[in-house]
Amino acid sequence: MAHGKTCDQIERASELLGMKWILLIVYQLLNGPMRFAELEHACEISGRLLSDRLKVLEREEIVTRTVYAEVPVRVEYNLTEKGYALAPVLNEIGTWAFKWIEMNEEIELHQV
Amino acid sequence: MAHGKTCDQIERASELLGMKWILLIVYQLLNGPMRFAELEHACEISGRLLSDRLKVLEREEIVTRTVYAEVPVRVEYNLTEKGYALAPVLNEIGTWAFKWIEMNEEIELHQV
Repeated sequence: MAHGKTCDQIERASELLGMKWILLIVYQLLNGPMRFAELEHACEISGRLLSDRLKVLEREEIVTRTVYAEVPVRVEYNLTEKGYALAPVLNEIGTWAFKWIEMNEEIELHQV
Repeated sequence: MAHGKTCDQIERASELLGMKWILLIVYQLLNGPMRFAELEHACEISGRLLSDRLKVLEREEIVTRTVYAEVPVRVEYNLTEKGYALAPVLNEIGTWAFKWIEMNEEIELHQV
């Protein structure tokens, strides 16, 4: 049967990974743990959106949130083993996008 | 700068690939050209949704639609080079999902 467990898994994974900003956040965290403000700056998204996506990533056990009892309190986000396991996925998407996705410079210029 | 062309490309690619059903349709077509009814059956989605997604895939030049002048008319969908280039992406997502995405059999049973 063509539609089985594999299809369901691919569908569920692509639903999660296709959520806007999810892969971009994972991509940033591949370099190591980051603080909220660093992620906000690196991903260029609003704090509200970032906070929402980090909660999804925590729930899916892709990201951990660690609070360090310093003054001021330091909060760091890091990939779990499940999160780091996304590196080859991101790598292949990057390779594909680099070859096949045309970034239209003109449109970007018009938007500035 | 952390946010550059690569980020934009990954973001645009993940937006497209994360669209519900898109990767599943590509996954089915990796085995070769298929007719609409075959895809409908294999993906277990409604004709309306499949038609919509195939239009997106055609527009993105991932899928071609070929009409054969037979009686009755035969229409086949096939991956382009850009489409087949998604095989390693699907492969890595499949590997990741197989290891990390738990398909809860109990929930599925309840839904039957």
